Amino acid sequence: MAGIPIGKGTLLAPTPVVMVSCARPGAAANIITLAWAGTVCSDPPMLSISVRPERYSHDIIAETGEFVVNLVSRELLKACDYCGVKSGRDMDKFAACHLTQEAVPVLDHAPAVAQSPLYLACRVNKRLDLGSHTMFLADIIEAYATPRLMDDTGKLDLYRADLVAYSHGEYTALTNPIGFFGFSVASPAVLERRMAILNKGHTKGK
Amino acid sequence: MAGIPIGKGTLLAPTPVVMVSCARPGAAANIITLAWAGTVCSDPPMLSISVRPERYSHDIIAETGEFVVNLVSRELLKACDYCGVKSGRDMDKFAACHLTQEAVPVLDHAPAVAQSPLYLACRVNKRLDLGSHTMFLADIIEAYATPRLMDDTGKLDLYRADLVAYSHGEYTALTNPIGFFGFSVASPAVLERRMAILNKGHTKGK
Repeated sequence: MAGIPIGKGTLLAPTPVVMVSCARPGAAANIITLAWAGTVCSDPPMLSISVRPERYSHDIIAETGEFVVNLVSRELLKACDYCGVKSGRDMDKFAACHLTQEAVPVLDHAPAVAQSPLYLACRVNKRLDLGSHTMFLADIIEAYATPRLMDDTGKLDLYRADLVAYSHGEYTALTNPIGFFGFSVASPAVLERRMAILNKGHTKGK
Repeated sequence: MAGIPIGKGTLLAPTPVVMVSCARPGAAANIITLAWAGTVCSDPPMLSISVRPERYSHDIIAETGEFVVNLVSRELLKACDYCGVKSGRDMDKFAACHLTQEAVPVLDHAPAVAQSPLYLACRVNKRLDLGSHTMFLADIIEAYATPRLMDDTGKLDLYRADLVAYSHGEYTALTNPIGFFGFSVASPAVLERRMAILNKGHTKGK
């Protein structure tokens, strides 16, 4: 194609959409929904989240240096959206969304969202003030998964989490897998075996 | 749930999967496929990509300070995977994948992948050496979209790009939209109107 210039928007897509939970000691925990999040390093495992300074969670994360990234299943989507448009200054979002706090052993304050299929306990490593958003670079201290995500061999099958993605103002779910890393160069035997598993699909849901 | 600790992996999902193109002056352009990428700031529009120092594209991006993030449609997935497992040290990936270079007016060297439905011209703003990966923080200078992504009113309908996501070693496509930002608090009238559009779906493909 000859691409048409359409301005300098934030059009990287799809992005994850995650519910980030955090808490000051002695105060009600909060949840903020973010799509500006990504893995940034494999070893050590690190991710980044970007938060507007005017958001209620911003200073909680800046002060405590910790947060939990809760992945979002289709079942959680309405609560996820709600936590993205409402402020923790005005309400207890855990209560408003009927969500349960789960203590995270490796963190001091931030609880996880118990209903999330998989969550990542994070400690802030570095902060960059970029403009409209503060980027918090964080070490992933530990990941926690609900047992139903494990297959018969005890291996994590993340497809079972029925995760949601975000793309230009809309939420979508994910189709059955359509390929695997390295499929373009796999031997015919490997390709056949792996694609049979993918075409059969994993099992979504509980 | 009571989450089971499963180690400290890079399990944020789904992530985008993008083909990043770059070029040294006078040398063949290269493409590297990355899933460690994310939007990090809205104003100014910025994104980050993380690249292992041993990858061929790493020094090209470090030296030229520019690259193009090409979004990946389902049609491009096989080439995308191939560019993730092969090295530009050994081959011309544009030629090997039958892809076309598109000059990007706002950049000096890096061409776009003409077959990508939407691409973002980026200039490196900051570099962070995090361990296994170097994070390049970049300003999004301009976005370019193929005309077929525009709806009848001239508005970008990114759903038409039929984008691919990455989740724990597998590629997936996106379902029809299942919600929009703010749907959880929309008035009944707005909800009905918007969801009717989403349920009808957009038009994928050319």
